[in-house]
Amino acid sequence: MNQPNIAVLGATGVVGNHILSILEERNFQFNSIKFLASAKSAGKEIKFKGNTYFIEEAKPESFEGVDIVLSSAGAATSKALAHEAVKRGAVVVDNTSLFRMEKDVPLVIAGVNDEDIRKHNGIIANPNCSTSQLMLVLKPLHDAAKIKKLVVSTYQSVSGAGKAAIDELTDSSKAVLNNQEFENKVFKKNIAFNLIPQIDVFMDNGYTKEEMKLVNETKKILHLPEETPISATAVRVPVVISHSEAVNVEFEKPITPDEARKILSEAYGVVVEDNPTNFEFPTPREAAGKDPVYVGRIRKDLASENGIVMWVVADNLRIGAALNTVRIAEKLVEMGLIKK
Amino acid sequence: MNQPNIAVLGATGVVGNHILSILEERNFQFNSIKFLASAKSAGKEIKFKGNTYFIEEAKPESFEGVDIVLSSAGAATSKALAHEAVKRGAVVVDNTSLFRMEKDVPLVIAGVNDEDIRKHNGIIANPNCSTSQLMLVLKPLHDAAKIKKLVVSTYQSVSGAGKAAIDELTDSSKAVLNNQEFENKVFKKNIAFNLIPQIDVFMDNGYTKEEMKLVNETKKILHLPEETPISATAVRVPVVISHSEAVNVEFEKPITPDEARKILSEAYGVVVEDNPTNFEFPTPREAAGKDPVYVGRIRKDLASENGIVMWVVADNLRIGAALNTVRIAEKLVEMGLIKK
Repeated sequence: MNQPNIAVLGATGVVGNHILSILEERNFQFNSIKFLASAKSAGKEIKFKGNTYFIEEAKPESFEGVDIVLSSAGAATSKALAHEAVKRGAVVVDNTSLFRMEKDVPLVIAGVNDEDIRKHNGIIANPNCSTSQLMLVLKPLHDAAKIKKLVVSTYQSVSGAGKAAIDELTDSSKAVLNNQEFENKVFKKNIAFNLIPQIDVFMDNGYTKEEMKLVNETKKILHLPEETPISATAVRVPVVISHSEAVNVEFEKPITPDEARKILSEAYGVVVEDNPTNFEFPTPREAAGKDPVYVGRIRKDLASENGIVMWVVADNLRIGAALNTVRIAEKLVEMGLIKK
Repeated sequence: MNQPNIAVLGATGVVGNHILSILEERNFQFNSIKFLASAKSAGKEIKFKGNTYFIEEAKPESFEGVDIVLSSAGAATSKALAHEAVKRGAVVVDNTSLFRMEKDVPLVIAGVNDEDIRKHNGIIANPNCSTSQLMLVLKPLHDAAKIKKLVVSTYQSVSGAGKAAIDELTDSSKAVLNNQEFENKVFKKNIAFNLIPQIDVFMDNGYTKEEMKLVNETKKILHLPEETPISATAVRVPVVISHSEAVNVEFEKPITPDEARKILSEAYGVVVEDNPTNFEFPTPREAAGKDPVYVGRIRKDLASENGIVMWVVADNLRIGAALNTVRIAEKLVEMGLIKK
């Protein structure tokens, strides 16, 4: 198998940093690697696998000879550069929401819908973080019992909003504890010891874009009929890393909590942590820095016939973005889908 | 109208303190007042309406001549003393979960099911905090469109677990911010910048007692059929005061978000704060210290035909416990239900 030439676009961001660590951890095999970012970061040093690299300014020409672009740049950069990379023969694994719902762009979670990778036309979209962790849990259950209806309430960490948001949580928490004033910059309301029931902008139907991403991306990834009833509430919580989700899912066929537990204990990328009387259930701080999606509190939904309620927790920076980006790149190589 | 002799039982606790403030704020009219607590607190001074009182040890004899007991003592104290107070002619407004589901004990939220007060046999139970705020919002909607199904995910502040829990959140948050070790005492896992998907003990069905309280108390208060499908997930969040709830409620009859907004804007004890594009939605820190239940993010449930999704926030110490206790005492006097 030929090893690819890869480029990491947006190498200096929170997700970009995680992509680097994960490439190292998984010992991702490549022929060459380059690190691209905005002009502002160009020339900065970057340490990777014991070597020093310099960040290059991302330009259309940067992608000459590149096979796979691991992109965690912002939407503006992706818009400007993704097609330039594709034009030059690269496959772009993109983390923005820009291309996710486009018909000819597969929206992929490695281990969930790998076959969709084959349909790519140069761009593969990485789903939103809150969707990704949920899909790893729902896919094996959907295969067994077919999803009929889904209601999700999220508890999302600030790291989903970037480095500045993490600093704002830390700094504003210190301010509150010391009875000092604090001026919010990232969040519209103070997130310290508080909850903000808004992530991303509001749409005309009263849902946020984050909530509608969860609704629409779930349907696309699991190939569910458009009319499948799915509803979501997305809430920002004062947690640094890991998103948590309270999930009420109803199935066509009967499925018991024990059956769900068994299926999930054998599922790709999922760890069942569900012994509540012994205080074994997932929490975001414990999931941070780890690769699996953790699921616990699995029980019969008292409000529906074939329903299951669960608590799903994962490191949003890893599973939701960086890890899936690297896993998709691995699949591209394994499946022989890069042009060599 | 005769003014009652009242006793505040559990005067030194978090809820007890709030009962005192609320009695002052509302200028509750009484003939006499006494403050009762455990032997440990007996003799301590207490300031109330500019006067100094001394806390007395709560004993059966303490209730001689008392008309209304505002009780926020623990379950053991309520078990030992509530019937002793009733025997002596008092009506006990009790905050524990001890009597709530007993057939001959009305479970009352003032403004929601006042008529149930008339059925009392000496004890009136105050519902669990997470139930109370929800009922004030659901009752007027239920009257208009009849509840068919309810799914709730809660985001509950640490103050629901008492003073020590507030200190533990504060101290462990400081420890995390300073990279120091911290030994949990109140919570089984560290609550700082974390979430704990467990409130109260686990039941055989995999739900916590807190979750089942919400399910069962809702049915009792709204006089819903036992088979009404209701499901809840209760999660502790690193917030000091106010519980928040993501609510998916399905109705028998069609009801639009605008209709729900109109009904709620006229509802007792409820304030609609729902102009999301202007960042107007309730948050727990903003609701703390205030009397209303705040509701926002009102929108059509995408997952059910006649469903509404909402975000409900209230000061759990006030609405969930102290305020409702005082309001029930006021109703007892207004309705002429104390023995004088």
